[in-house]
Amino acid sequence: MIRVGIVGATGYGARELLRLVLAHPEAEPVAMVSESAAGQQVSDVLPAFRGLVELSLESFDAASLAQRCDVVIVGVPGTKSAPFVRDLHETGVRVLDLGPDFRLKDPALFRQYYKVDHPAPELLSDAVYGMAPFHREAIADARIVAVPGCYPLSVIVPVAPLLDAVETDIPVVVDAVSGVSGAGRSLSEGFHFPEMNEDLRAYKLAVHQHTPEIEQALGNRALVQFTPHVAPLTRGILTTITFRPRQSFDVASAFRRYESEPFVRVLGAGRPAEVRYVRGSNFCDLGWVWDERTGNLIVVSAIDNLMGGTSGMAVQCMNIMFGLDESTGLLAGGMAP
Amino acid sequence: MIRVGIVGATGYGARELLRLVLAHPEAEPVAMVSESAAGQQVSDVLPAFRGLVELSLESFDAASLAQRCDVVIVGVPGTKSAPFVRDLHETGVRVLDLGPDFRLKDPALFRQYYKVDHPAPELLSDAVYGMAPFHREAIADARIVAVPGCYPLSVIVPVAPLLDAVETDIPVVVDAVSGVSGAGRSLSEGFHFPEMNEDLRAYKLAVHQHTPEIEQALGNRALVQFTPHVAPLTRGILTTITFRPRQSFDVASAFRRYESEPFVRVLGAGRPAEVRYVRGSNFCDLGWVWDERTGNLIVVSAIDNLMGGTSGMAVQCMNIMFGLDESTGLLAGGMAP
Amino acid sequence: MIRVGIVGATGYGARELLRLVLAHPEAEPVAMVSESAAGQQVSDVLPAFRGLVELSLESFDAASLAQRCDVVIVGVPGTKSAPFVRDLHETGVRVLDLGPDFRLKDPALFRQYYKVDHPAPELLSDAVYGMAPFHREAIADARIVAVPGCYPLSVIVPVAPLLDAVETDIPVVVDAVSGVSGAGRSLSEGFHFPEMNEDLRAYKLAVHQHTPEIEQALGNRALVQFTPHVAPLTRGILTTITFRPRQSFDVASAFRRYESEPFVRVLGAGRPAEVRYVRGSNFCDLGWVWDERTGNLIVVSAIDNLMGGTSGMAVQCMNIMFGLDESTGLLAGGMAP
Amino acid sequence: MIRVGIVGATGYGARELLRLVLAHPEAEPVAMVSESAAGQQVSDVLPAFRGLVELSLESFDAASLAQRCDVVIVGVPGTKSAPFVRDLHETGVRVLDLGPDFRLKDPALFRQYYKVDHPAPELLSDAVYGMAPFHREAIADARIVAVPGCYPLSVIVPVAPLLDAVETDIPVVVDAVSGVSGAGRSLSEGFHFPEMNEDLRAYKLAVHQHTPEIEQALGNRALVQFTPHVAPLTRGILTTITFRPRQSFDVASAFRRYESEPFVRVLGAGRPAEVRYVRGSNFCDLGWVWDERTGNLIVVSAIDNLMGGTSGMAVQCMNIMFGLDESTGLLAGGMAP
Repeated sequence: MIRVGIVGATGYGARELLRLVLAHPEAEPVAMVSESAAGQQVSDVLPAFRGLVELSLESFDAASLAQRCDVVIVGVPGTKSAPFVRDLHETGVRVLDLGPDFRLKDPALFRQYYKVDHPAPELLSDAVYGMAPFHREAIADARIVAVPGCYPLSVIVPVAPLLDAVETDIPVVVDAVSGVSGAGRSLSEGFHFPEMNEDLRAYKLAVHQHTPEIEQALGNRALVQFTPHVAPLTRGILTTITFRPRQSFDVASAFRRYESEPFVRVLGAGRPAEVRYVRGSNFCDLGWVWDERTGNLIVVSAIDNLMGGTSGMAVQCMNIMFGLDESTGLLAGGMAP
Repeated sequence: MIRVGIVGATGYGARELLRLVLAHPEAEPVAMVSESAAGQQVSDVLPAFRGLVELSLESFDAASLAQRCDVVIVGVPGTKSAPFVRDLHETGVRVLDLGPDFRLKDPALFRQYYKVDHPAPELLSDAVYGMAPFHREAIADARIVAVPGCYPLSVIVPVAPLLDAVETDIPVVVDAVSGVSGAGRSLSEGFHFPEMNEDLRAYKLAVHQHTPEIEQALGNRALVQFTPHVAPLTRGILTTITFRPRQSFDVASAFRRYESEPFVRVLGAGRPAEVRYVRGSNFCDLGWVWDERTGNLIVVSAIDNLMGGTSGMAVQCMNIMFGLDESTGLLAGGMAP
Repeated sequence: MIRVGIVGATGYGARELLRLVLAHPEAEPVAMVSESAAGQQVSDVLPAFRGLVELSLESFDAASLAQRCDVVIVGVPGTKSAPFVRDLHETGVRVLDLGPDFRLKDPALFRQYYKVDHPAPELLSDAVYGMAPFHREAIADARIVAVPGCYPLSVIVPVAPLLDAVETDIPVVVDAVSGVSGAGRSLSEGFHFPEMNEDLRAYKLAVHQHTPEIEQALGNRALVQFTPHVAPLTRGILTTITFRPRQSFDVASAFRRYESEPFVRVLGAGRPAEVRYVRGSNFCDLGWVWDERTGNLIVVSAIDNLMGGTSGMAVQCMNIMFGLDESTGLLAGGMAP
Repeated sequence: MIRVGIVGATGYGARELLRLVLAHPEAEPVAMVSESAAGQQVSDVLPAFRGLVELSLESFDAASLAQRCDVVIVGVPGTKSAPFVRDLHETGVRVLDLGPDFRLKDPALFRQYYKVDHPAPELLSDAVYGMAPFHREAIADARIVAVPGCYPLSVIVPVAPLLDAVETDIPVVVDAVSGVSGAGRSLSEGFHFPEMNEDLRAYKLAVHQHTPEIEQALGNRALVQFTPHVAPLTRGILTTITFRPRQSFDVASAFRRYESEPFVRVLGAGRPAEVRYVRGSNFCDLGWVWDERTGNLIVVSAIDNLMGGTSGMAVQCMNIMFGLDESTGLLAGGMAP
C-alpha cells in the first residue's frame, strides 16, 4: 500500500484526491494537513467522508510526514505551495503538487502572471510536468511532479499532436467553459449561488495564468488566445479550439498517438466531446470538425476538471511513480447522469 | 391599443411575446392561433397565463385574423412560417415573423442551410430584417418584418461597428454559449434534464443556419466561424468574438454609434458582458479586451435569448411600426438574481 | 407619479422592487439609499439597471427622503429596519418595510425568534400586516406596512380559508422548499455555488422565525410545524401543507373567497401548484389532494419568493395605499421557461 | 471474479450499476442485454463507457445468460421486469431486480398501485427484499432479490428503528424531494430542461407506488403520507419525516442499531442530512430535531438515489450473496463538490 499524505486537505482538489485514494486498491491516506482546521476530525470538517476516514487534520511538519508517507500531495492555492514542496523535498519524500507553482520553467513568466516572485526557483529544474501521456518516463523517476492545470490539460492533449499544422504567429483561439468548482472554495460575490446560477461569463481575458503553461507545454510552437468562461455547473470543462491549419492533413492519423493512452478518447471527425460523458471520470475526450468553407479546424475536448484535470492526473502520476498499472483506481466510467 | 394576433402560440418565443404584450401599456393580445391545441383555453395550455388571458386558441384563418388584428406575430419553427406569413401578407395585415424564413435574402443559402426550398421566395424582397439599431426607418414602413435570430443579434451588434478593422478573408471566431430555451420546446434526449444538467456541449459546428444570417447582416464583409454551445441554464446567450484587427483603432469610438440606442449597453474596455445582468431584459450588453500580446480583439456580448434576441426585439419593432416610443413595455432591468 | 424611495437598495428584495417600480406606469424611483455604497451610481453597483436609472446611491436622511418621496420602501436585513422605519415614520412619510421587524405584534416572540429586543415596540400597533387579500382596507390608510415574508405568504394564503377544519392542537405540517435568493446576498459556505448546486437541505428546523408570523396571521388557530428547505434554483417557493381535517368539507368552496383576488389562482383538486408557472409573476398558485386512505388534506402552493412573497406584494400594497388598481404594474404572467 | 449480466442496460439504474461493477475489484460485466439496442457496441450507445467496456448489447436469452453469468441484474421499468426475472430464475441463475415487480408481497396492492395484474405472483414468496441492514441473512441465500426503491430506502432506514413511538393510525408525514434522474430516461414535457430547470413540483400525491412498499417494509405499523417532489438537480433524495411520537424516548439510542452498518451514517440531533455529502456514494445519512413546542420529531435523511437507493444497494446485496465484504467496491466518499 502506498501511504499518501495530503497537504491542504480541505480544498476542492484535495477532497477529490481523498475520494480517489480511498477507492484506490493500492493506496491509503495516512496523514492530512490543514493549517486552518488542524486538530479537527477529517469527518467533521468534510462530512462527505464520515465513516471512511478516521484521521485528524494536523499541522504541517515535513519531517513527520516524510516518516509516515511514501508520497505527499500538496493541494493549496497558487503561489502558496512552493514552501511546502521545498520543505518536503528536502526530507527526501516524493511530492506531487496540484498547484501551479512548479509548472512554469521561467520564473519571469511566473512573476508576470502570478504577480509574485517565485518562492523557490532553484527547484524548478527538478520538477517534472505531470502530463502522463507525454512525460511518463520522467514522472516515474521524479521527486517533484507538477500536476497540470485543468484548463491546460484540456488544451494540450488536443493540440500537441497537431502542432505541425499550426502557424506559429497566428493565435490559436481557445474558448473554454468551466464548471464552478474550478474556482475553488473561496467565497466571492460572483460565485454566490443566486449570482452564478443562470449566469454565463468570461473572465481574465488575455491575462489568465494558464496561458503560459499551455504555450510552454506546446514547446512555444503556438500562440494561444485563451479565454476562460464559467457556466452554472459544478464539474467539467468544455474547450473549443479553433485555428486554420497551414496545410491539409489527416487529423485522425495525427491523433493515433493516443491509441494506447488509457485516458484519452479520440471520438473522431464530426463528434465533438461533451462533459456529460466524462463527469466523474479521468478521461479527456476529443473530437473535431474541419470547416471547408472557412479553412478552420475546430477541436472540442471535455474533461472533469477535478478528475482528469487535477486529482485524477495526480493519481495517474502516482501510479507511474510507484510502478503500478497507470489506470489503477481510475477505472470509473463517466457519470451520465 | 394595438391589437396583436399570435400564431404558434405555444412555442417558447410566442409565450415570451405574450408575456411582453400583456405587460405592454399600448398593446393587447386579441387572437392566439395554435393548430395543435385549437379550441382549448390559453390558460389551460399555458398555465403561467391563467388569470391574465381569457382567449381560446384557434385555428389559423388569415382573413379572420386580419379583421381583428393590427399586427400578427408568427412564432412557428423554422421553414414552417412562410405559408402563414404569405397568407397573412395577402390580407394586408402587417406581419412580424419570429422565425428564420424571411431573414436570408438568397434562396440558395436558405436551401443550403435549411435543407428545403424556400416556400415563398417572391416575398423575400418585401421582408425587412428587424434589427432595430440598423433598420428602424425600413421597419417603420414594413409589411413583413423578419425578426433576427438570438445568436445573430449577439454577434451583429458587437461586430457591425468594427467591420472596417476586420480582414475579410480571415475568419472571425465566434464561440457562443446559449441557455436551453433556445432549442425550443421539442423533446429530445439531449435536452432531457438529467442529460443536459451539468453538461456542456458544442453542436452544429460549421453548419449552423445562423452563420449566413450573420454574414449577410454584416454585408458579407466578414467570414464568420460560428460555433454554438449549450450550457445548463434556461435563458441567456454569452458570445465571445475573437479576431485580429488589421489596424489599431479606438474601439470605444467605434461603439459610440450606440450611445442613443435604448437597448445596447456598451460596458467598455476590460468589462466583458454577463448574462445575469440582461436576463429578463431586452438589453444587449457588450465589452471588450484588446490583447496586445497576440494582437487579438476579444468582444463579449450577452443577451436574454428569449427577450433581446427574439420576442423583445419583436416588440421593439412593433413599437416602431406603430409610432410608439421604442422602449414602450420594454423597460424592465435585468433580473439579478 | 408616485415618487418612491428605497432604503437598502443593494439587497435582493430591493433590487426586485426597483425592477418592478421601473416598469410601473404610475411610479418612479427618486431616491436610493445604501449606507455601504453611498456616493456610487446605482448603475455601477447594480449593472442590471444600467441605462434605466440615473440616480446615485445616498446615505440615509429621513427628512430629505420625506421631502422627495411619497413612499419609502425599506429593504434591509431582519432586525435592522426598525430604526429606519421609526425615523421615516416620524417625518410623516408613508413606509413599507420588506423586512420582518414590524410583522410580529408580540415583542416577546420577536425576542424569542430574532434573539434581540425589538428596537421600536411602540410602533408595533401602528404597523399593518401587508397581506393584501386580508387587510386591504387597513393597508389603504396605513402609515407603516409590514410586508409579509415569502414563506408566510405561501402558507397563509392556502391555510387561512381552511381554518375551520384545522384541529388547533395537532400540528399542521408545512414542508417548504425555497430557491436560494431567499437567503439574500450575504456570502456563506453553504450558498457557494459548488456547495449549493446539486444539493438539497433542510435548515432551522423548529426555530425558523417565520413560524410565529404564520401562526399570528392565522389567528393562532393552528399549530404550525414549519420546516424550510433549500434547493438549487434561484427563485421560487413550493410549499406542501399536510393536515387531517376534523370534518369533511368542500375545499373548493372554502377557496371561493379568492375568486376575485387578482393574484391568487386556485387550481383545484388534483392540481398541485408548480414554481415554473409563477416565476417572475406576483401570483400565488394553489391546488390540493384529499387522501381518503389517510384522511389527510395536502395543499401545495407556489410563489416567486422575490415577487409574490416580497417585492410584488409591496407594490400591490403601494397601489392600494395610493388608490390605484391593485394590479397596476404587476400584470406579468409567469415565465415558463 | 463475479461474472455479472445486466438486463435493460441503457436505463439510468443499469448505467450506474455498470459504473459500479467496472470499478468493483471482484466483479466484471460479461453480458449486457438491451432489446432496443441489441447488436450495437455498449460504448456507442453509452459513450461514458467508451474505452472501458468491449461488450456488444445483446437480445435477452435466459439460458445463454445463465451459462455465462454468476448473477444477472435486471433494470427495466416497473411492471416489465417480472417476465425476465421468471425466465432467468428458471435457469437457476441468481437474479437481482432493480425494479419494483417483486417488492410488494401482496398482488392486490401491486394491482392497485401499478394498474396491472402481477405477471408472476407465484414467485413473490421466493423474492427477498434487498434492504441489507434488515435482511442480510436472507439476501445471502436468496435466488431473487428485489432491490428497494430509492424513496423507500430514504424512509425505511430512518423510521424502522422508531416504530415503537409511532401511533399506528396517525399518518407519518413524509415529504421527499428527488433529483430528476429518479424519473428515468423517458422523455416527457415536464422533464425537458427548460421546464424542469428552476422549477419545483409535487406529484402523484396520495397514489405513489412507493407508499405500500414503505408501509410493508415497516411491518404495516405506520400509516405513511408520502408526498414526492422533484427539484432541479440530477441526483439525490432529501426526505423529511414528521410525526408526533406517542411517548418521549432517546432517539440516539434507537439509532444505535446502525452503529456497525457500513452505509448508514447517523449524524445526530440538530444535524439534518444533506444531499451534497452523499452524492456519488452509497450512504444514507440521517439526523433529527425534536420540537418541544409542537411535540413533533422531524427526521431528515439523504441518499444518492442512483447509488444508495438502487444500484449501490444492488452491489451491496451482490457482495452479501457472494460472501464478499459488504462494502467491496462501494468505498467512495460523497462528492462535495
